[in-house]
Amino acid sequence: MKVLITGFEPFGGEKINPSWEAVRRLPDEIAGAELIKRQLPVTFRGVRELLPRLIVETKPDLVILTGQAGGRPNITVERVAINVMDSTMPDNEGFVPEDEPIFERAPDAYFATLPVKSIVKALREAKIPAAVSNTAGTYVCNTAMYTALHTIAVAGMETKAGFIHVPFVYEQALDKPGPSMALETIVRAYEVAIRTSLKD
Amino acid sequence: MKVLITGFEPFGGEKINPSWEAVRRLPDEIAGAELIKRQLPVTFRGVRELLPRLIVETKPDLVILTGQAGGRPNITVERVAINVMDSTMPDNEGFVPEDEPIFERAPDAYFATLPVKSIVKALREAKIPAAVSNTAGTYVCNTAMYTALHTIAVAGMETKAGFIHVPFVYEQALDKPGPSMALETIVRAYEVAIRTSLKD
Amino acid sequence: MKVLITGFEPFGGEKINPSWEAVRRLPDEIAGAELIKRQLPVTFRGVRELLPRLIVETKPDLVILTGQAGGRPNITVERVAINVMDSTMPDNEGFVPEDEPIFERAPDAYFATLPVKSIVKALREAKIPAAVSNTAGTYVCNTAMYTALHTIAVAGMETKAGFIHVPFVYEQALDKPGPSMALETIVRAYEVAIRTSLKD
Amino acid sequence: MKVLITGFEPFGGEKINPSWEAVRRLPDEIAGAELIKRQLPVTFRGVRELLPRLIVETKPDLVILTGQAGGRPNITVERVAINVMDSTMPDNEGFVPEDEPIFERAPDAYFATLPVKSIVKALREAKIPAAVSNTAGTYVCNTAMYTALHTIAVAGMETKAGFIHVPFVYEQALDKPGPSMALETIVRAYEVAIRTSLKD
Repeated sequence: MKVLITGFEPFGGEKINPSWEAVRRLPDEIAGAELIKRQLPVTFRGVRELLPRLIVETKPDLVILTGQAGGRPNITVERVAINVMDSTMPDNEGFVPEDEPIFERAPDAYFATLPVKSIVKALREAKIPAAVSNTAGTYVCNTAMYTALHTIAVAGMETKAGFIHVPFVYEQALDKPGPSMALETIVRAYEVAIRTSLKD
Repeated sequence: MKVLITGFEPFGGEKINPSWEAVRRLPDEIAGAELIKRQLPVTFRGVRELLPRLIVETKPDLVILTGQAGGRPNITVERVAINVMDSTMPDNEGFVPEDEPIFERAPDAYFATLPVKSIVKALREAKIPAAVSNTAGTYVCNTAMYTALHTIAVAGMETKAGFIHVPFVYEQALDKPGPSMALETIVRAYEVAIRTSLKD
Repeated sequence: MKVLITGFEPFGGEKINPSWEAVRRLPDEIAGAELIKRQLPVTFRGVRELLPRLIVETKPDLVILTGQAGGRPNITVERVAINVMDSTMPDNEGFVPEDEPIFERAPDAYFATLPVKSIVKALREAKIPAAVSNTAGTYVCNTAMYTALHTIAVAGMETKAGFIHVPFVYEQALDKPGPSMALETIVRAYEVAIRTSLKD
Repeated sequence: MKVLITGFEPFGGEKINPSWEAVRRLPDEIAGAELIKRQLPVTFRGVRELLPRLIVETKPDLVILTGQAGGRPNITVERVAINVMDSTMPDNEGFVPEDEPIFERAPDAYFATLPVKSIVKALREAKIPAAVSNTAGTYVCNTAMYTALHTIAVAGMETKAGFIHVPFVYEQALDKPGPSMALETIVRAYEVAIRTSLKD
C-alpha cells in the first residue's frame, strides 16, 4: 500500500506552514503502508500541473492532501471540492483568479472519497478536536483537492482521496488573537487519519 | 522561597478542570522555590474562607491562582480583580450572587502584583500563545483573585499575587466548536510564569 | 417577469424565522416583476416535494430562496449547493439524515445561477454588510437550494436560482452573545438582490 | 435635569465613529431633561483635560459617555473603569502609553454609578441586543470613564456616570467579517439608556 501525503509551502506572510511541518515529521511507514511525502506550492498553476503527474506516476492507494486553515480551532476533514478558483489574496506567483473554473467541462464538485466521518470519529477518540468541514474555500487548497479527485475520476483509478485542514500552530498565533494547536497534535492527527483510511 | 499555586475543581458540567490538572502535574520545586499546590472549590464562600487562611498560614512569597476560561484561545494573565460577585450560573454550592461585594468596605479593585507583562512576554518567547486580560469576570475566579490581593494588602504582606486563566484542553473541546490547548502546554506555561515571577 | 421568493418557518427552538419575516414584508411587485412569496417547511421531505411542484407550476424567471443562518454577522449569498443531507439536529418532522443524497444519480453539486458577486456588490453599495458564502451547510437550506437548481436543470428551464442566508434579527439575539441585524435591513437586502438579479 | 452625553471622533483608520454619529442624532431634550452633546477627542491627554472641566462647568445630573467597540456584537454597558492607560495602538496624537496610571494616587478602579443592569434590561425589553461588560479596555474609552467618575468623586458631586460601548455600524463593516448594527438602533439605545437612568 502506498500513501501520498502532501503539505503546502508557507503563504500569506507566514514563515512556516503547519501542514508541511507536520507531514515532514511523519514516519516513512504507517501500518505497513509506505508514505510518499511531498510539499506543494501555493499556486493555482503549480498544483494543477504537479498533482496529476504525481498521482499518475506514484499510483497511491490513498491521497491525503493537507493545508493550513488559520482561524479554525480544530482539525477539519473536508467533505467536498468545488470547480472554482476565486480569491482576493494573490497566490505565491501573484495570480488572483476571479470565479474561474479549475478545469473546463468538469463537474461542479467532487465529494471526498476518504472516510470523512470515520476519520473525525477516530480523531475525537484520540482526544484531538476535529470536525467535518463543508467548504475547503476557493483558494489553492480547494484547487488541490478538486484536482486530485478529478484526476483520479478521469483516470478511473481506485485511489481514495481527500483533504485535511489544520489550525495555526502555537508559534504562528503568538501575536494573533485566534486559536492554535500544538504541532505534535497535528502530526498525531495525520497518523490517525492515515490508519483510519487504510482500514476503511 | 515558597510559591502557592492553586487550580479549581471542575464546574459548569465539565468532568475536569484544566487549571488543576496542570497544577498537579507541576514538580514540587521550581528554580529553588518550594511549590504548595492546592485545589480550590468553585464556590464563592469557599474561596473567601480558604484563601485568606491558606495565605496567612503558608506565608508564600508568590501566589499564582489559576482557573479555566473556556472559549479563550490562549493563556491570559489577569490585570485586575474587582469587588463584585455577579453570576447567572450557580457556583458548585448553588449560590447565584447578583452584584454583591466580595468584601464590604473594601476597594473597588486591586491590580495584580505579579509581573503581568513580563509573564506574557516570557510565555510568547517560549512559543506559548498568551495575552494580558483586563477582566477576570465576576464569577469565582475573580473572587479568588480579589480575595488573595485583599488578604495580602490588609495583612501588609510583601507577597506578589495574581491570576492566570487557561483555555479548555483538547478533551474538553471534542464536541465544542471553540479553541483548546494541549494540557502539557498549560503545565509548561505555569512553569514559565513561576520562573518569571521569581526573577522579578 | 415572475420572482418566486421563499423563507422558512421557525426551527431550532426559535419563535420566528427572519427569512420568512422579511419575505412577507416585501411589496407584491419590484421593478415591474410580480413577487410570489411562499413559506417553506423546515423538513427535508417537505422542500423536496413542494419546491419542484412550485417551480414547475409557477414558472418563475427568478427563484430566490432565503433562510436563517444564526451566528453569521452579515447577508451571505450562497455559491453552491451539494447533494447531501447530513444533520445531528432533527428537522421539524424529527428526521435526522446522515450522509444521504438529496436525489439519487444526481450531480454532486450545482452552482447558483444568480449573479452572486453582483448581488454582494450591490448590497455593499447599499451599505448592507454582505459576503459570498461557499457553503449552505447540509441541513434543509442546502436541500432546498439543491432541489431548486436540480429541478430547473432537469426541466431544462432558463430560470435563475440561488439562496440567501440571513443573520438572526435583534429580537432573537437578546440573550445570545452573537451578531444580529435589523429586520428592515434584511427586507432591504432582498429588494436589492431581486433588482440586481432582474437586471442581470 | 441636565444630561451630558458624549461620543468620540473617529480613530483607528475609521471614517466615522458611530458613538458620535448616534449622539448628534439625539433630540435636545429627553423626558424633560436637557441634553448637552459633546464630541471628545481620541487622545489620552484630551479627555483628561476636557472632561473634568466639562463636568464641573455644566454640572450635569447624568453623564453618559459612549464609544465604539468594534467587534462587539451588541450594546455593552460598562461596569468598571480602571486606573491604567495601556495601548499598542497610538491615540490620535500619536501617544502610546504603557501601563501608566491615569491619575497618580487615585483608586485602582471606580464602578459605574449608572444603573447598569436596569439599562441592559430596558434595552432588551426594547428589543436591542445588550449586555453588561466587565472591561472598558485600557485605551481612551476607559480613560474617559475613569476620568469622569474620578472627577465626580473628588468634587463630591451627586452626578451619576458611566460608559456605553457600541458596535460598528453597517457602513463600517462592509468589508470586515465581523458584527455590526444599524445606526438608528444605537440612537434608540441611547434614548432608552437616558430614560432609564433618569428614572433611577
